[in-house]
Amino acid sequence: MLTSRHQVTVEWGHCDPAGIVYFPNYFSYFDSSTNALFLRALGFNKYQMLKKYDIVGVPVVDVTARFIMPSVFGDVVTIESTIVEIKRSSFRMRHRLLKGETLAVEGHEVRVWVGRDPADPDKLKGKAIPEDVIARLRG
Amino acid sequence: MLTSRHQVTVEWGHCDPAGIVYFPNYFSYFDSSTNALFLRALGFNKYQMLKKYDIVGVPVVDVTARFIMPSVFGDVVTIESTIVEIKRSSFRMRHRLLKGETLAVEGHEVRVWVGRDPADPDKLKGKAIPEDVIARLRG
Amino acid sequence: MLTSRHQVTVEWGHCDPAGIVYFPNYFSYFDSSTNALFLRALGFNKYQMLKKYDIVGVPVVDVTARFIMPSVFGDVVTIESTIVEIKRSSFRMRHRLLKGETLAVEGHEVRVWVGRDPADPDKLKGKAIPEDVIARLRG
Amino acid sequence: MLTSRHQVTVEWGHCDPAGIVYFPNYFSYFDSSTNALFLRALGFNKYQMLKKYDIVGVPVVDVTARFIMPSVFGDVVTIESTIVEIKRSSFRMRHRLLKGETLAVEGHEVRVWVGRDPADPDKLKGKAIPEDVIARLRG
Repeated sequence: MLTSRHQVTVEWGHCDPAGIVYFPNYFSYFDSSTNALFLRALGFNKYQMLKKYDIVGVPVVDVTARFIMPSVFGDVVTIESTIVEIKRSSFRMRHRLLKGETLAVEGHEVRVWVGRDPADPDKLKGKAIPEDVIARLRG
Repeated sequence: MLTSRHQVTVEWGHCDPAGIVYFPNYFSYFDSSTNALFLRALGFNKYQMLKKYDIVGVPVVDVTARFIMPSVFGDVVTIESTIVEIKRSSFRMRHRLLKGETLAVEGHEVRVWVGRDPADPDKLKGKAIPEDVIARLRG
Repeated sequence: MLTSRHQVTVEWGHCDPAGIVYFPNYFSYFDSSTNALFLRALGFNKYQMLKKYDIVGVPVVDVTARFIMPSVFGDVVTIESTIVEIKRSSFRMRHRLLKGETLAVEGHEVRVWVGRDPADPDKLKGKAIPEDVIARLRG
Repeated sequence: MLTSRHQVTVEWGHCDPAGIVYFPNYFSYFDSSTNALFLRALGFNKYQMLKKYDIVGVPVVDVTARFIMPSVFGDVVTIESTIVEIKRSSFRMRHRLLKGETLAVEGHEVRVWVGRDPADPDKLKGKAIPEDVIARLRG
């Protein structure tokens, strides 16, 4: 399965009064790394990807994370993201945030490939992930 | 164990281009709700609490969440937060985000009661949760 | 012109390693206060307002702010927001963030009432603010 | 005076339901670009810089911005940041966000070089910017 590595500079504004990354921001890092993986896999940025596949997004429906070691502003960290499972309309990712070679955060996400619900455009509905996308995510 | 209910208005700026809450922001909601629970339990806001107990924070070391139903800007939701377990220097919380009576998001967090490490003030170190805090969290 | 007052609890996650509100978050406070003012003026939350008036948003095109006194997590502050000028498709707001009676932050925003551009739905375009909205914003 | 250019990928999570950058996030971009300029000027990241000069931060006390053209997720933009004025304990910056060669956002900030107030460590107080810092910011 596809793996991509994405570098992030921990910014002052990502950190809390303890001086360390405010934990919800790790999920933004994971999200950016997911976008970077799709850009690499498909050759489209997220804006182009939504247009091309007529979807509204790939929202997270399940997430877990372990925060092993804090990071501070100024740190440059690497997020290693891997597609670990693909189903009909959802997929599972693993994210490992590394400081040098040391694992600092580990997380998993399940995401769904969603469009507008034809029966009610205010609602979202899972769609089958296209075959060409699956092929490219398999790497 | 103590439970508290905290109301949040989903703001425009909490939502993403799909028009729904950007998932990392749910963890900010959980964090606000945790702060509200401590304010209710101890009678101190977080600033006062850190001073009084000489700690740096209560960082999350483990988190899980399931996103069952999206919320949109303008929604007013309730976070019901409960302390479900207390150990020597850590505690476990459950957060349930409700839209009316319907469960929309459920999450668990493990948090640690931390101060500066006496051996290296740049590092954080778990401290024993004071007895009076434990008594009040037990409700 | 209409004025509304909106209370905000400064959360841990709004603050930076200096322990004070990270300045971009003041603009989120202003934005929330703007939404609260419209809810009060029109009786619609932002989601309902966009639907009713067929607009995409009221994006800010010009902003100024002075940060006079910092706020820390745990502070409960009041944002006093006033519509100070209304033009055909834009309006100007003043926001004053108060700690007790003391002015801590003052800002001004110009916002535009925008819809999708009929010539290119990927673009945004200013629209005339409806008469009933203007009447209600005049208070 | 010193100018530096900093590249930012507009992420999904930076954008609002209109699909464009939520305006407070532009100030985070400016802040990151300021940090990048200091790293380039001084050879220290912000964490190291605060330690070395015994300051708490360089908080913004005055800001203006004009949002000329929106950006969408997937856009890669450049922030061109320049120190335009240096006083005893404050300095003024100009930030220009460029999409290709086109100016999309322009902003100015006044920032103060602050430490803890010796008379009350809970308060912040302006300090003289060190001569070597001024020399390097002059470029």
